[in-house]
Amino acid sequence: MSKKILILAGDGIGPEIVAEAVKLLVALRDRFGVDLEMDEALVGGAAYDATGHPLPPETLAAARASDAILLGAVGGPKWEPLPIAVRPEKGLLGLRSGLGLFANLRPAILYPQLAAASTLKAEVVEGLDILIVRELTGGIYFGEPRGVDTLPSGERRGINTLVYTESEIRRICRVAFEVAMQRNRRVCSVDKANVLECTELWREIAIEVGRDYPDVTLSHMYVDNAAMQLVRAPKQFDVLVTDNMFGDILSDAAAMLTGSIGMLPSASLNAERQGMYEPIHGSAPDIAGQGVANPLATILSVAMMLRYSLDEPEAAGRVEAAVGRVLDLGLRTGDILSPGTRRVGTAEMGDAVVAAL
Amino acid sequence: MSKKILILAGDGIGPEIVAEAVKLLVALRDRFGVDLEMDEALVGGAAYDATGHPLPPETLAAARASDAILLGAVGGPKWEPLPIAVRPEKGLLGLRSGLGLFANLRPAILYPQLAAASTLKAEVVEGLDILIVRELTGGIYFGEPRGVDTLPSGERRGINTLVYTESEIRRICRVAFEVAMQRNRRVCSVDKANVLECTELWREIAIEVGRDYPDVTLSHMYVDNAAMQLVRAPKQFDVLVTDNMFGDILSDAAAMLTGSIGMLPSASLNAERQGMYEPIHGSAPDIAGQGVANPLATILSVAMMLRYSLDEPEAAGRVEAAVGRVLDLGLRTGDILSPGTRRVGTAEMGDAVVAAL
Ligand SMILES: CC(C)[C@H](C(=O)O)[C@@H](O)C(=O)O
Ligand SMILES: CC(C)[C@H](C(=O)O)[C@@H](O)C(=O)O
Repeated sequence: MSKKILILAGDGIGPEIVAEAVKLLVALRDRFGVDLEMDEALVGGAAYDATGHPLPPETLAAARASDAILLGAVGGPKWEPLPIAVRPEKGLLGLRSGLGLFANLRPAILYPQLAAASTLKAEVVEGLDILIVRELTGGIYFGEPRGVDTLPSGERRGINTLVYTESEIRRICRVAFEVAMQRNRRVCSVDKANVLECTELWREIAIEVGRDYPDVTLSHMYVDNAAMQLVRAPKQFDVLVTDNMFGDILSDAAAMLTGSIGMLPSASLNAERQGMYEPIHGSAPDIAGQGVANPLATILSVAMMLRYSLDEPEAAGRVEAAVGRVLDLGLRTGDILSPGTRRVGTAEMGDAVVAAL
Repeated sequence: MSKKILILAGDGIGPEIVAEAVKLLVALRDRFGVDLEMDEALVGGAAYDATGHPLPPETLAAARASDAILLGAVGGPKWEPLPIAVRPEKGLLGLRSGLGLFANLRPAILYPQLAAASTLKAEVVEGLDILIVRELTGGIYFGEPRGVDTLPSGERRGINTLVYTESEIRRICRVAFEVAMQRNRRVCSVDKANVLECTELWREIAIEVGRDYPDVTLSHMYVDNAAMQLVRAPKQFDVLVTDNMFGDILSDAAAMLTGSIGMLPSASLNAERQGMYEPIHGSAPDIAGQGVANPLATILSVAMMLRYSLDEPEAAGRVEAAVGRVLDLGLRTGDILSPGTRRVGTAEMGDAVVAAL
């Protein structure tokens, strides 16, 4: 039976980059027999503009009925004056929690062809291949109480709540240990257990889960030190596992080590391995509509989708190899340009990957 | 009348590095007429071991009665099995909140002599001079409710609370704008206003305070993007202002850009400009007692103390110039060693600074 993929282009550069991924999916279907069908729906600012809500019920229903979701990006200054409850970002958060996509996998890999694009010295990042496992449906992103209230004095006060249950921590740690078994068998759990009781519980549960994986070495690091170590010596890490907020911050820093936030895909999985796939980068409103955005993070997100949700590891490898060949040819969008390479636009890059399949 | 300085050596490398700062203070008093007296007290793990509490009441009282406090570092694996309420870190947090030291100034400056020590490419960090203004007595570090409770199901749940009142936000933003007036007149306020209501209030108040400083350019950045931009193009920043938790993470990342966490001082000030001064680095238990730690961050913290709390700007400049001369001579502790320089220990480095005064 063919697999159902829901396409959510979103805002900013979302539609442009997703268009290239769709080209690729069509080619995989028509030329390589990957059995899939695609449907589209609205999310984010685009959905808000059309329906008054960043996650219309039809979109959530369609997402639930899909095997996998491909998302471009959401948000932009156009919607920033709106309250948090109806911002484009709420559409994304609603999908994550509505589908129970608690496990966010964010690889940070330095493509050897792109070493020149990193702001770090070559010896510090050469061969970098780390994976951040970020908890995605809990923590301070979703904790209650939240909001702004007014004190008797008339002064306002803003509140958000960091909260995790043992089972929420346990299942994300388990994912980290499982993927570490397929990699270099090292897990570093990142917390602030010297200050925050919630993350003291996190550390305790990480240790408990680790007992089931005697072949994996577990270490612990405070989040401030982790941010520093990512800049100092990122290759010391294999798998990092952390909460929603820390994972948001550390994965962006890690992505930048590779000099190419425009290159990095992500997968967000639930217990049934249903998944949402999206580039780590945002909607980049400053370059939207110009045809210059890098589609490779979205294209590599398709590769993750093929591997984790569509059970097509061969096709996944084919896509990744095609991206490698295109980089070998010296084609570069503006974000990864370096001396001696050739600048191309979004569509030209997408076409080149399809041609290299 | 002579100024009172309270010396809190703390744990790990704390006593070694503070000893060098004390040498320096003695030289400033004896040779340059800086009118000061010093007293010592226990804090952190050292205090816990001696008294059962990481911040004995005598220490807090002595701190309150001082013009300035010099702190080494607290914590270490020895005390990690303890509950958060009596950990060494609680001593530090108790001083911060007990003295109302809400404004934490953390400069990240690349010393031209140390460019080789940075993991970032020279052109990315050359001339780097940014200042992180971190809120230090509020936010998730101190918010209630906090702790671990048990749900009816028997499952445990960890909770911490991020909370800020308007006035807490207003006073730290005001500090950021004031220091920006002495610098390049740019403030970037870092929040997660697209997800956290508390930081939406933060952004609103930052804008409100900014209206009083028409000569300062205010921008806003989400914390994940800020972590990325610090790696991508740190020189875009002048002053960054942010909350306690984000400031903890970003300031460590920023410190590492300079290749030399061992070089960076900090000041924590209250409304009366009473201040606590400490290196940004931690207690480094792995190298404690070996006489190899870098004392320069502590020595530069003395310079900040002279400037902000002791009203001795000339002496402050003298200390900073002496550090520059010692670096020019090629003396380096292990953390900042590079080809062509000479390795020295903690005491030799401290002596060299005193000699260069
Ligand atoms: C857009 C925003 C809500 C989102 C997040 O904070 O999770 C983004 O930064 C990300 O990392 O996917
Ligand atoms: C030791 C710890 C409590 C402290 C903090 O988190 O504030 C430290 O990391 C710092 O940045 O001064």
